[in-house]
Amino acid sequence: MNYERYFQENREKHLGELKELLAFPSISCLSEHKPDMARAAEWLLNNLIESGFENAHIHQTNGHPIITADYLHAPGKPTVLVYGHYDVQPVDPLHLWITPPFEPDIRDGKIYARGATDDKGQMFLHIKAIEAILKQEGELPVNIKLCIEGEEEMTSPNLPSFLEANKEKLSADFVVISDTAFLETGRPAIPTGLRGICSLDVIVNTANSDLHSGTYGGGVPNALHALVSLLASLHDKQGRVAVEGFYSDVPDISPLMKTEFAKLNYDEEQLRINLELGALYGEEGFSFIERVGARPTLELHGVHGGFQGEGLKTVIPKEAHAKITCRLVADQDPEDILDKMKNHLERHLQSGAKLSIITGVKIRAFNIDPSHRILQLAADAYEDVYGVRALFTKEGGGIPIVEAFSRILQAPVVMMGFGLPDEKLHAPNEHFNLENFDKGLRTMVSFLKKI
Amino acid sequence: MNYERYFQENREKHLGELKELLAFPSISCLSEHKPDMARAAEWLLNNLIESGFENAHIHQTNGHPIITADYLHAPGKPTVLVYGHYDVQPVDPLHLWITPPFEPDIRDGKIYARGATDDKGQMFLHIKAIEAILKQEGELPVNIKLCIEGEEEMTSPNLPSFLEANKEKLSADFVVISDTAFLETGRPAIPTGLRGICSLDVIVNTANSDLHSGTYGGGVPNALHALVSLLASLHDKQGRVAVEGFYSDVPDISPLMKTEFAKLNYDEEQLRINLELGALYGEEGFSFIERVGARPTLELHGVHGGFQGEGLKTVIPKEAHAKITCRLVADQDPEDILDKMKNHLERHLQSGAKLSIITGVKIRAFNIDPSHRILQLAADAYEDVYGVRALFTKEGGGIPIVEAFSRILQAPVVMMGFGLPDEKLHAPNEHFNLENFDKGLRTMVSFLKKI
Repeated sequence: MNYERYFQENREKHLGELKELLAFPSISCLSEHKPDMARAAEWLLNNLIESGFENAHIHQTNGHPIITADYLHAPGKPTVLVYGHYDVQPVDPLHLWITPPFEPDIRDGKIYARGATDDKGQMFLHIKAIEAILKQEGELPVNIKLCIEGEEEMTSPNLPSFLEANKEKLSADFVVISDTAFLETGRPAIPTGLRGICSLDVIVNTANSDLHSGTYGGGVPNALHALVSLLASLHDKQGRVAVEGFYSDVPDISPLMKTEFAKLNYDEEQLRINLELGALYGEEGFSFIERVGARPTLELHGVHGGFQGEGLKTVIPKEAHAKITCRLVADQDPEDILDKMKNHLERHLQSGAKLSIITGVKIRAFNIDPSHRILQLAADAYEDVYGVRALFTKEGGGIPIVEAFSRILQAPVVMMGFGLPDEKLHAPNEHFNLENFDKGLRTMVSFLKKI
Repeated sequence: MNYERYFQENREKHLGELKELLAFPSISCLSEHKPDMARAAEWLLNNLIESGFENAHIHQTNGHPIITADYLHAPGKPTVLVYGHYDVQPVDPLHLWITPPFEPDIRDGKIYARGATDDKGQMFLHIKAIEAILKQEGELPVNIKLCIEGEEEMTSPNLPSFLEANKEKLSADFVVISDTAFLETGRPAIPTGLRGICSLDVIVNTANSDLHSGTYGGGVPNALHALVSLLASLHDKQGRVAVEGFYSDVPDISPLMKTEFAKLNYDEEQLRINLELGALYGEEGFSFIERVGARPTLELHGVHGGFQGEGLKTVIPKEAHAKITCRLVADQDPEDILDKMKNHLERHLQSGAKLSIITGVKIRAFNIDPSHRILQLAADAYEDVYGVRALFTKEGGGIPIVEAFSRILQAPVVMMGFGLPDEKLHAPNEHFNLENFDKGLRTMVSFLKKI
């Protein structure tokens, strides 16, 4: 049993396989990539079988396929369910990528591709770590179940019903997910909270036709004016969300939590420099870590209307669009927040304009107690490999499925991430640091053997 | 000499030629249409020669070609310079066109195509009216010069220098332009004022990369938030432009002008119904006609940033864009207004965001006295054909070149339009009413013979 030698000897093979997986343009939210999703799922199925998993199966859903597999030969031992996702975000703006997003490229010890860190690279660690134990020891110290989905980047519309329908088959003592990041290089973190999310699309309409701004300018409503003033009304000058009642289910940050946050010793100035910002920005009276960890937020993800081409088109646009999400904390109810948003938008709409609102995802925040045994074992495993114990944090992002696993399978969820905060997930030039690929394999072996 | 019979016998031929002209996708502001611009210019050259014009010539410019031609065989008689443009606006959103924008289609007595009313159809009237006089009488009652450009829809960047360089060659007693509209069917109008225009593009940048809204949301500036709050700050709640000093060179509307406007008896309710609006919108305390005729305005023509595709992408965009113009009246100086806008935008920018501003066109407003002889003759000509005298109005739009002709050639400019206000210029399903095509030919013959 020499894992160090095994992982060294198999490094090229592992990276070759990862490159194959990253080459699939498995963008779940764009329907033209449906065939790529199916091909990626097929590839994973074969890789799982070759890695020694049993009962590998592709499940069709109303959206993209879910893959399950298991290895259940440790009677009396705990069962661990590993979750990951093989779908990725869109790649635009494409011209900002140094190498094409679906032609994985290794440089400076990093592998560049869409999905490298979110989540193909991290998910792949589990498959190879489990294969390693099987190859080295002929058996696993625990029972393993795998559930890999293809709709995480579109907030997993079909996974909850799949979990409900397969509650028995997927039952586990713990759920393990690797889809989060370190605090920084060499400083692993285990999130004990995730923000929830709710989303809505806003469309403002004015006249029944685009109009010439010479003939009509100043005398008719302009859909863009109406939209920007509506969107601007969503925040006040202090960076707070101005929607009435938005914060009513948000508790003050407790003194204990303030202490935990302080322990992180987060370097805001370094973040500002990394992002090349003149200043950070957010709700007054809170640190960056508090803002993204313990405070809700409302973000605009896309706005468009009117002419966007080269040159000048003196048009008064008849419609304008915006995409908005709110990140939620504590007991905020997505339905309630969406209702409050709708009320606000309707009340602030300029006269002469019409408003359409389409609501989307609705996911509550998730929290787990850091003193839980499985979280402590995970921290031990990191310590074995990285020499430092993982810190317990609150994560600003949502992994919509975490709350669903916790609720439907009634199992504690431990998030063991191996990404880094600057790996450009959801942006051009996404990458995954190979140091964490290598150490991640070793950490997962250590973790599974500790359980 | 029977013009009625001549125009009836040649109607099919004229419409056939117009369709050929409208079929060129001569969109000046999109560089991929440069070859179409050249082909349209070539077609016009040949049509002018066939119509009896002399000295027809295509002049290359730094942008798109200018066509000139003349017929100077009326010694001692006045010289009339006719201006028109053969370029058109972009066609998006293309899916809203009932028939393709460059496949002219006649239905319900209207010809549908991009450029039908603005300005190919109206410009073509002059060529065919002059051809008619030549064919019927063998000579013209005046000297005629023609100047047709291809950059009006991009605010004629090369025409002023062309006019300067050819001041002698193009010198005239009057300039005639048909690129405006009636008040409504059967109610011709002669604009005695045009608003000026200035434009700017605004780009807001925040971080050096798009960021994930889970990890960063609430803790970093969002380029879209910064942009929409900046854009919303440009107007107050009463529909006035909130840029400091914006109105300082705008005089109150004089009692005389108020009377002229009242004479138009403009039906705002009908406009509201035509545009299917819940309400008109604009600066408080002014009528629609006053707002577009005598008041300046600031309009957003395009805004974009972040994700615009199908589905949800939880990105914090690093940049966002807006296109803005101001329509100007009276003595407003475009340079001065642009400076005031820049000051305003810089002062209202959210911390953590960077601002880039690119200024564009700068054209002053234009005014002419309605008692001028040539304007009275034009009104007479309309009366001959339509049975009603044209009213003198202020036009909200700019024809950038009008101010340039007036200034460079030192000649009075008379605007004899034949469009209708609802002909969707700059919008999908642009068209030109053939009643005004037919009567326009007769009006121009009458006008030229009166001079």
